[in-house]
Amino acid sequence: MHAFDDALTLTPTDQHTASGRTTAAYANMVGPFGGTTAAIYLRAVEQHPERVGDPLALTVNFAAPIRDGEFSVLAQPVRTNRTNQHWTLTLTQGDDVAGTASAVLGRRRDTWQDTEAVMPRVPDPEDVPPIAAAPVPWLTNYDMRFVDGPMPMPGDRPSETSRTTLWVRDSPTRPLDFASLVAMCDCFYPRPFLRLGGWLAAGTVSMTVYLHATAEELSAQGSDHVLATASASRFAGGYADQTASLWGRGGTLLATTHQLVYFNDRRRS
Amino acid sequence: MHAFDDALTLTPTDQHTASGRTTAAYANMVGPFGGTTAAIYLRAVEQHPERVGDPLALTVNFAAPIRDGEFSVLAQPVRTNRTNQHWTLTLTQGDDVAGTASAVLGRRRDTWQDTEAVMPRVPDPEDVPPIAAAPVPWLTNYDMRFVDGPMPMPGDRPSETSRTTLWVRDSPTRPLDFASLVAMCDCFYPRPFLRLGGWLAAGTVSMTVYLHATAEELSAQGSDHVLATASASRFAGGYADQTASLWGRGGTLLATTHQLVYFNDRRRS
Repeated sequence: MHAFDDALTLTPTDQHTASGRTTAAYANMVGPFGGTTAAIYLRAVEQHPERVGDPLALTVNFAAPIRDGEFSVLAQPVRTNRTNQHWTLTLTQGDDVAGTASAVLGRRRDTWQDTEAVMPRVPDPEDVPPIAAAPVPWLTNYDMRFVDGPMPMPGDRPSETSRTTLWVRDSPTRPLDFASLVAMCDCFYPRPFLRLGGWLAAGTVSMTVYLHATAEELSAQGSDHVLATASASRFAGGYADQTASLWGRGGTLLATTHQLVYFNDRRRS
Repeated sequence: MHAFDDALTLTPTDQHTASGRTTAAYANMVGPFGGTTAAIYLRAVEQHPERVGDPLALTVNFAAPIRDGEFSVLAQPVRTNRTNQHWTLTLTQGDDVAGTASAVLGRRRDTWQDTEAVMPRVPDPEDVPPIAAAPVPWLTNYDMRFVDGPMPMPGDRPSETSRTTLWVRDSPTRPLDFASLVAMCDCFYPRPFLRLGGWLAAGTVSMTVYLHATAEELSAQGSDHVLATASASRFAGGYADQTASLWGRGGTLLATTHQLVYFNDRRRS
């Protein structure tokens, strides 16, 4: 079993509740990699017997660090319409709420379509070296090849822009699905690192993913590299936003995703 | 009392629940203007006695049209940390869930700051004519001055881009606050109108607002015009995203906001 599927293993405990546990493979500096947590919420919906349609939107609120060990996910379908379905979710450890989420699923229809955003022109992933170091465990599960804005090392000079662009895929490879796409939406290190030239205490507070890809488009993507590009609009008062796009190599816009990030520039290294 | 404050009037009914009602002033084609609904969720948190800090992020899921009349808002503080607080909210009419929301509040700290996004260079609002027609009631409560991408009229040619930029403020004027800023984040007509050159059945499914402005910045803004600019990345399968920024005239990035929008191009006019 792929480490990602292992991390997403949820055992139903009653109609709307399932239990899971953190895995060492996706450990972050504090608690698990947020992308895995986001994927766990989605998986709880995907495996729920009342699920209708494919995921369209997911918002995850990181209320507190998840402690190593077991957790419970409550997934409630609060409204099912003709073409879409709304879910609310809560992740608890004992009596503590560690996070909440909401998901919108829907059936896509055949309509006019167009991709207006423009995929960055970058070298092929085969022509970009993968990162060698993994300062936190979860990074070892990804093949990351930075085209622009790699993670600064302590002592690096601040960058003038918060733009990072990289090729990313699971390592070892794994066919892309909605859950792994959602996880990849959180593959970026915090934008303040780049603008301040170093590492600081920082973490995602809230994250939203809009899934543009259909199941067929994901299937066509297979386990090929995904181009992920992110930047921020404003940093102030200990918070910054991040907006990002994930593209299939062939030019399919798979997802757009947005975050609010906490940072503390007094805790730097 | 300003019509906006009237629309946001919520009467506590128990510890976490308040009742409100739709108002004719903010009626949309079907149900109330979504911006008002988003502001109502925020107001439910703002007036809750357990509230800590200012709003940082708000996600609103529009699960069903709100019927004209009364509704109930349940606002639950699910986690209060040292510097932030997480809320989940549900809007019901009788036994029906019409929508859900989540909010993150926090205390901002004094950190490094920078605005990396660039405010569009546009004429002053005094040099742009306000829209004359209001095809839906809620529009009469806003002074809107389109710099780019005005709402197409039936029979107009499709636009090559989904970009709309406008000056917007309450009409009659009202000092900007977090709630009215949130409402303005939904001031854009659906992007498919512009790309398809006409009106079609469309509506917001999920909306996220990141509030960059501090209370002091809102106070400095007063009741001056806000510059709002929006565009979409991808349209497909009956859904499109929208990403937008709201700026104070002096160059303060007040909010960034994102939506997933439903559209049906077989129901056009």
